[in-house]
Amino acid sequence: MIVYGKNSVAELLRNSPRDIKKVMVSENFDLSSYPRINVSIKKFHIELSHISRNAITDICRSPNHQGIAAEISDFSYSSIEEILGVARQRDEKGFMLILDHIEDPHNLGAVIRTADFLGVHGIVIPADRACDVNPTVVKVSSGASANIKIARETNLGRVIDFLKKKGVWIVGADADSQELICGSDFASLDIAVVIGNESRGMRNKTKKKCDFLLSIPREGKVQSLNASVAAGIFLYEVCRQRHEIKAQ
Amino acid sequence: MIVYGKNSVAELLRNSPRDIKKVMVSENFDLSSYPRINVSIKKFHIELSHISRNAITDICRSPNHQGIAAEISDFSYSSIEEILGVARQRDEKGFMLILDHIEDPHNLGAVIRTADFLGVHGIVIPADRACDVNPTVVKVSSGASANIKIARETNLGRVIDFLKKKGVWIVGADADSQELICGSDFASLDIAVVIGNESRGMRNKTKKKCDFLLSIPREGKVQSLNASVAAGIFLYEVCRQRHEIKAQ
Repeated sequence: MIVYGKNSVAELLRNSPRDIKKVMVSENFDLSSYPRINVSIKKFHIELSHISRNAITDICRSPNHQGIAAEISDFSYSSIEEILGVARQRDEKGFMLILDHIEDPHNLGAVIRTADFLGVHGIVIPADRACDVNPTVVKVSSGASANIKIARETNLGRVIDFLKKKGVWIVGADADSQELICGSDFASLDIAVVIGNESRGMRNKTKKKCDFLLSIPREGKVQSLNASVAAGIFLYEVCRQRHEIKAQ
Repeated sequence: MIVYGKNSVAELLRNSPRDIKKVMVSENFDLSSYPRINVSIKKFHIELSHISRNAITDICRSPNHQGIAAEISDFSYSSIEEILGVARQRDEKGFMLILDHIEDPHNLGAVIRTADFLGVHGIVIPADRACDVNPTVVKVSSGASANIKIARETNLGRVIDFLKKKGVWIVGADADSQELICGSDFASLDIAVVIGNESRGMRNKTKKKCDFLLSIPREGKVQSLNASVAAGIFLYEVCRQRHEIKAQ
């Protein structure tokens, strides 16, 4: 898989240099202007090739590579068990995210970036009819996809049933709900937040499995939020409440 | 200006039908499947033309129009005074957003959508070196750009000075700050939130003018959030605190 762009390659070099097979830079890319990239490439003995800008464009299938790209092993998905293991390792209440068919790679990338930033333990995405972790997603995530465990599962319903048996509460984002996220308690429970599809929201069968359906307070006229912004606000609210408890 | 896509045109028809000069649909677009669109077009006597899909693509300069587009008057910007007037009208503490050079139309559109949803009184964008409210922005905002006042100003520094004189506190989003948004009081003050550029953040001269520099709690490895997600979290925190006060 190919990752491109200065920030994404720098983030990869910082967090998972051993996954990188090769770094490619265009002829006029001045590595000495990016000491952190330059030093990491040398430190980890990563193969470096200088090729034409057009060749990089061909490899990335996009002109937005800023003259630098890295070839990495294909994205390796995790299991639900591994995600639950992160919570145990960090000795924290469970904090997961389930995406019920996000289709747009920019949304998926932004959600992964936000989830990593806010300390989510892992993300579950569906195996069919949804965006998977492709190079655009990796790029948009600013490399965060290398920092967070992502499971790709064929049956989200079964995943939810399994999590419930493990004591995890399922919190669905549902714009129609009268109950608001700000009035709910996310601090003392193991939680998985469910975010639905960009235009259709959560599927009905997913909704029925949720323990709570909550909405973001709406004060204006527009009916809904962008999926990655809604995910950001839900995850932030969980993070904020846990912060408050720790600060007490 | 052209607005396209089913949601955007429907939102326009709901909120500002009188700004629409004409609606265009492709030959195979079945208006009877969209009763709300169909009824509004008739109710407000809006000119309707059936043209080819390709002709709509040409007019929109994008193939993502889903067979429907509307021609509206060019975006009409508001003044800062008009934005301050919204707070007085609603009898609410001031709630503004200043964008210090957002460049990407998808980010600007998502920010406008979020700001409308969360009840922001108005947005200030710079007149130069930043994205203005173009058709892509209107589309991505899901029509929210018609619901919220947006001022386009040549000198953001002067805007901030003016707002300060009016008693508005300036709250900058700054990932480097140790002070967190969740520990701050947004409920009892007139506030303008400042969000910086996608890759460079706020300019230094803007930073210096801020009364508070605050960050979102970072728990993971990735260094920053997407600008529209960061804006969503900041605006949500203001909204949440004011909600809590009202609920007491």
